[in-house]
Amino acid sequence: MSVAGKATVGVDFGTESARAVLVDVGTGRELATAVHRYASGVIDQRLPGDGAPLAPDWALQDPDDYLDALGSTVRAVLAETGIDPSDVIGIGIDFTACTMLPVTSEGIPLCRIPELRPDPHSWVKLWKHHAAQPEADLINETAESRGDAWLDRYGRRTSSEWFFAKALQILDEAPAIYARADRLIEAADWVVWQLTGVETRNSCTAGYKALWSKQDGFPDRAFFEALAADFADVVDEKMSRDISSPGERAGLISADAAALTGLNVGTPVAVANVDAHVSVPAATVVTPGSLVAVMGTSTCHLALADVDRVVPGFCGVVEDGVIPGLFGYEAGQAAVGDMFAWFAEILARDGGSLDELHRSLERDAALLEPGESGLVALDWWNGNRSILVDAELTGLLMGATLATGPGEIYRALLESTVFGTRTIIETLEESGIGVDEMVVCGGLPFQNRLLMQLSADITGRPVRVAESRQAPALGSAMFAAVAAGPELGGYGSIVEASERMARLGEDEYLPNESTQPVYDDLYSIYKDLHDTMAGPSSGMRKLRSVQERARKQTVVPV
Amino acid sequence: MSVAGKATVGVDFGTESARAVLVDVGTGRELATAVHRYASGVIDQRLPGDGAPLAPDWALQDPDDYLDALGSTVRAVLAETGIDPSDVIGIGIDFTACTMLPVTSEGIPLCRIPELRPDPHSWVKLWKHHAAQPEADLINETAESRGDAWLDRYGRRTSSEWFFAKALQILDEAPAIYARADRLIEAADWVVWQLTGVETRNSCTAGYKALWSKQDGFPDRAFFEALAADFADVVDEKMSRDISSPGERAGLISADAAALTGLNVGTPVAVANVDAHVSVPAATVVTPGSLVAVMGTSTCHLALADVDRVVPGFCGVVEDGVIPGLFGYEAGQAAVGDMFAWFAEILARDGGSLDELHRSLERDAALLEPGESGLVALDWWNGNRSILVDAELTGLLMGATLATGPGEIYRALLESTVFGTRTIIETLEESGIGVDEMVVCGGLPFQNRLLMQLSADITGRPVRVAESRQAPALGSAMFAAVAAGPELGGYGSIVEASERMARLGEDEYLPNESTQPVYDDLYSIYKDLHDTMAGPSSGMRKLRSVQERARKQTVVPV
Repeated sequence: MSVAGKATVGVDFGTESARAVLVDVGTGRELATAVHRYASGVIDQRLPGDGAPLAPDWALQDPDDYLDALGSTVRAVLAETGIDPSDVIGIGIDFTACTMLPVTSEGIPLCRIPELRPDPHSWVKLWKHHAAQPEADLINETAESRGDAWLDRYGRRTSSEWFFAKALQILDEAPAIYARADRLIEAADWVVWQLTGVETRNSCTAGYKALWSKQDGFPDRAFFEALAADFADVVDEKMSRDISSPGERAGLISADAAALTGLNVGTPVAVANVDAHVSVPAATVVTPGSLVAVMGTSTCHLALADVDRVVPGFCGVVEDGVIPGLFGYEAGQAAVGDMFAWFAEILARDGGSLDELHRSLERDAALLEPGESGLVALDWWNGNRSILVDAELTGLLMGATLATGPGEIYRALLESTVFGTRTIIETLEESGIGVDEMVVCGGLPFQNRLLMQLSADITGRPVRVAESRQAPALGSAMFAAVAAGPELGGYGSIVEASERMARLGEDEYLPNESTQPVYDDLYSIYKDLHDTMAGPSSGMRKLRSVQERARKQTVVPV
Repeated sequence: MSVAGKATVGVDFGTESARAVLVDVGTGRELATAVHRYASGVIDQRLPGDGAPLAPDWALQDPDDYLDALGSTVRAVLAETGIDPSDVIGIGIDFTACTMLPVTSEGIPLCRIPELRPDPHSWVKLWKHHAAQPEADLINETAESRGDAWLDRYGRRTSSEWFFAKALQILDEAPAIYARADRLIEAADWVVWQLTGVETRNSCTAGYKALWSKQDGFPDRAFFEALAADFADVVDEKMSRDISSPGERAGLISADAAALTGLNVGTPVAVANVDAHVSVPAATVVTPGSLVAVMGTSTCHLALADVDRVVPGFCGVVEDGVIPGLFGYEAGQAAVGDMFAWFAEILARDGGSLDELHRSLERDAALLEPGESGLVALDWWNGNRSILVDAELTGLLMGATLATGPGEIYRALLESTVFGTRTIIETLEESGIGVDEMVVCGGLPFQNRLLMQLSADITGRPVRVAESRQAPALGSAMFAAVAAGPELGGYGSIVEASERMARLGEDEYLPNESTQPVYDDLYSIYKDLHDTMAGPSSGMRKLRSVQERARKQTVVPV
C-alpha cells in the first residue's frame, strides 16, 4: 500500500469560525490551512436582520454559515496547494456539541423557511445556548425519581447544553416548530448530510450529548413520555437509532457538495465527530493510560479505557465515543485560560497590551518557588464542571498579604487550575482507570510554558505536547483517511492513522521531584478547601444566595 | 473666666514628621499649623553616617530630630500668627508609642555619647521596631506560666512593640548599653522632660505599653526576675512608679526650652500622651457609648467605660489611660487604608495616578447594591490585631467569577474592614460595654465617603466625623489648656475643654435600614469564615507554614 501524494481534508467547526486543513496522508504533514469566520457568528442579541430580540441565555447560529465556511475553506486549501482533487481521498469534520437544529425530512433547516424564520426556535441552538435549564432540571429530576441507571454515566447530572434539553425547549416554547421538525439533528451530522445526501448519526454526540449507549441505546419511551406526552417518541419520530462509530464512512461527496467544495463527486466522507474528542488521536493517544487535555479558555479532558466504570463527576463515558473499541471518559474544567485572562483584564483596566501583560506575569510567576507566594486559590471562577458538576461555585483566593504581588496571584491561579486537574486524575485512578501521563493540545500549551511545567510538577506526571496547533482539524483529516480505507490509500483504523499521521512536539515537561512534597501539601490544602466549600451549607453557597436575592431586588421591571 | 485671645500649642510627633498647631482656647479654632520632617526619618537600613547596618525588623529614630521638629514647628506657628507668647498659656504633646530610648540620669540620650553612638541599641526604638519578638515571646510565656492576672487586660498577649520587650532586647543584646542607661523612657516623656527639666511618666503609655495599672502598678519583681536576673529591678532602677494622668501639668517651660521654642519661660506643659488616645476628646468623645476610630493605613479603636472588664482580643484596658476617671479600651485593625492601597497598587503596576484610581474604584464600588458583588473578604492582609491578635493570619477573597470587576473587589475589601470593625463592636458589647455610635477621625474619613457609609450600614450605627483633620495635635492643645487650668484662661478638665474646643464635622452617616438584612447575612458568612480560618489547624495556617518552609529553602546563605 502506498499513500504517497494522497491527502485528506479535515474541517473543524468552532464557535466563531471554521478551519480546514489539507493533510498529507502518508506523513500527517499539514499542507495548507484556511479559516472562515461565520457571517452571523454567535447570535445572542437578536435574530439577523433586526429580528426578534433574544433572552439572556440564548445562543444561536445560522446553518448556512456552516456551508459558506465549508465551501470557502475547502476550496481555499485546494487552491493554495494546487492539488489534484482526485488525490484527495477523503474528508472529515468535527464540530462544537451539542449544537443542534430542526430540519425537514429533506434536511432543509427550518430557519430557511420564510414563515418559520422569525421564530428563534427554528435556528441552530449553539452548544452554549443555556436557556433550556428548566428542561435540564426536569430531565434530571425525572431520571433521578425513576432511578434510571444511565444517569451514572453522566456524573448523575445532565446539562442544559445537551440534546434533549434543547429539543424539549422547542416543544415547550414553540410546539409548532417542534411539529414541523421532521428531524432534530446535531449540526455535525447535518453538515455530513449536506456533503453526502445521506443522514447519519455519530456515536460521539449521541453518547456524550444524547444519553445513548452502545449497550442500551437511548433511554426508554416511558422516560421521554414522563417529560412530556408529545415527547414520548422523539427518538423514533425525529432522530435515529442507527448510530455510526468514528472512522466509519458516512457516504460519498454528492454532486451538490462537489459544486460547493471543489472536491470530486464520490470522495469518501467520514462520520462526524466532536472537536475535543477528535483531538485525542491527533495527540497520538489511541490506547489507555494517558489523559488528553484540550486546553484553551476552558479545558476538556479525555481518557481511554477498556473497562466501563462509573467515575463520579465526569461528563460522560461512551463506548466507541472516541476510539472504536474503547470507552472514552470525558471531564472538564469550566474556566482555565479564561481565569488567567480575567486577571490580566482586571490589571489592564486602563488599556495596554494583554499579550505583553500575560508574558510579564508569567515571567514574574516563574521566578517564585513552589509555596513561596503563600497563596492557594480555588479555580471556580466559572463554577466547577468536574468533579463537582456545580455551576454555582465561585472562585476563592487565600493567603494574601500586603506583600502579595500580581505575579504571585497569577501563579496561584495557574496552580489552582492544575490542582483542579489533579482532582480529575485522582478520581479516575480511584475508579480504576490509570493515568500515567498527560498529553496536551489546544492553544494554551503553546502560550504558557509555566503552566505546562506546573502541570507536570503538581500532577507528578510527564506532560507531552501534541505537535499540531490545530489538533481537531488534523484529527478530522485522520478520520477521513480511515473512512477512505487502505484501498484508496488511507488506513484500516484510527490507530494506524494516528501512528502515521500524528506526532508529539519536542517540548516535554517532566515532574521536578524536589517540588513534590510542597505541592502535595498545597494540594491537600486545596482539596480540604474544595471539599469544605462544595459542602451543602458552605459560606460560598450562602454568599451566592445572598447575591441572587440582591440581584432580584435590583432588577427594575420593564 | 475669660479665655478670649488665649491659645495653646499641641505638637503631634508622628512616624515621619511632627506637626504643631496653635489653637484658640475659647473656640478650638486652629490658628496656624506647621510640619517638620525628621532629618533621619525612620532608620531601618543603617545608622546615620554610614553606621552599622540594621537587621530586617529594626526601626530606630534620632531623638535630636524630635527637638529640631519641636523648635521649628512651635516657632513657625508663633511667627505665622504673630501671637504674643504670653498669650500662649500651655503646650501639650502626643507621640507614637511605644517609642522608647535609653538616657542618662540627666536625660542625655545614649546615642548622643560618641563612644555609644555606633551601637544601634543606644538609639530610639520606634514603635514599629519588631526585632524584640523573642523577648515578647518570653514575656508572654512567663506571664502565662505564672498565671499573671494582668495578662487579661491585654487580650492575653503582649506585643513585641511594647516597652519591656524593647528594654529586655537591650539587656539581651547590648548589656553594656543597658548598664549605662540610667533611665529607660518613652520618647513622649523624654520630650516633656526636655521642655520642663522634670522627668514625668504618663499613664497612657505606662498602661497601654508598659503593663502598668492604676490599681496594681507594674508587674511584680519576681516576674521581671523570671525574665532575666539583671532585669528584676528594671522599674525601680530605670523607670518610675510615679505615673501622671493626662491633663496634669508636667512642669513649666525651662530656659533652655524657651530658647528652643520661643515660648515664655514658665509656660505650663501637659503630661505627654499617645497620638490615637489624645484624638478621643478631640473627636468630642469624653463619655462612654462611642467607639472612636482613628482611621488611616491601619485603624486604632478606642472606647470609654466606667467599668473594668476583660474584653477578649483587645490591645489593652487602662484606667485614666484616655480620660481621667474612665477606663479606656483599645483595639486595632492592622491594615485598613493599607489594604485599599495594596489593591490600587496591584492595578497600577504600569504606573498612573493612584489618587485617580482610588476615586474611580470608589465610584464603581458605590454603584453596587449590598450583596450584588457576590464577594466576601477576610480583611487580614496584615494579620488580625483585634479580636484574634494573630499576625500569621492572611487575606482571603471568596466569590470571584469571570464577571467580577475591580470595583467589586474594591467594595469587598472596604466591606471586609467594616466587618472587622463589627467584630470589635460586638466583642465590646458582649463584654458589657455598649457602643451606640462611631466617631471617626484620621485621614481615611475625608478620603473615602463610601467607606463611611458602609461603616454605618454594616455596624448599624451612626458614624460621625471629627471636624479637625489634625485631631491628635488638637487633642494635645486641649490637654495643654487643661494643664494651664482656669486660672490662666484654660479649663478645669478635659471634658470641659472638649465641649469648648472640639467639634464634629457636618458629615454624618446614618445606617440605611434597608441594607441591614443583607449585611447581617454577609456578616454571618464573614464571621463563620473568620472563626474557621482562625482555627488551630485551618488551611490558612497550614498554608502559612508551607510558605515559611519554602522561604527557608530559598534563602541563600551569605
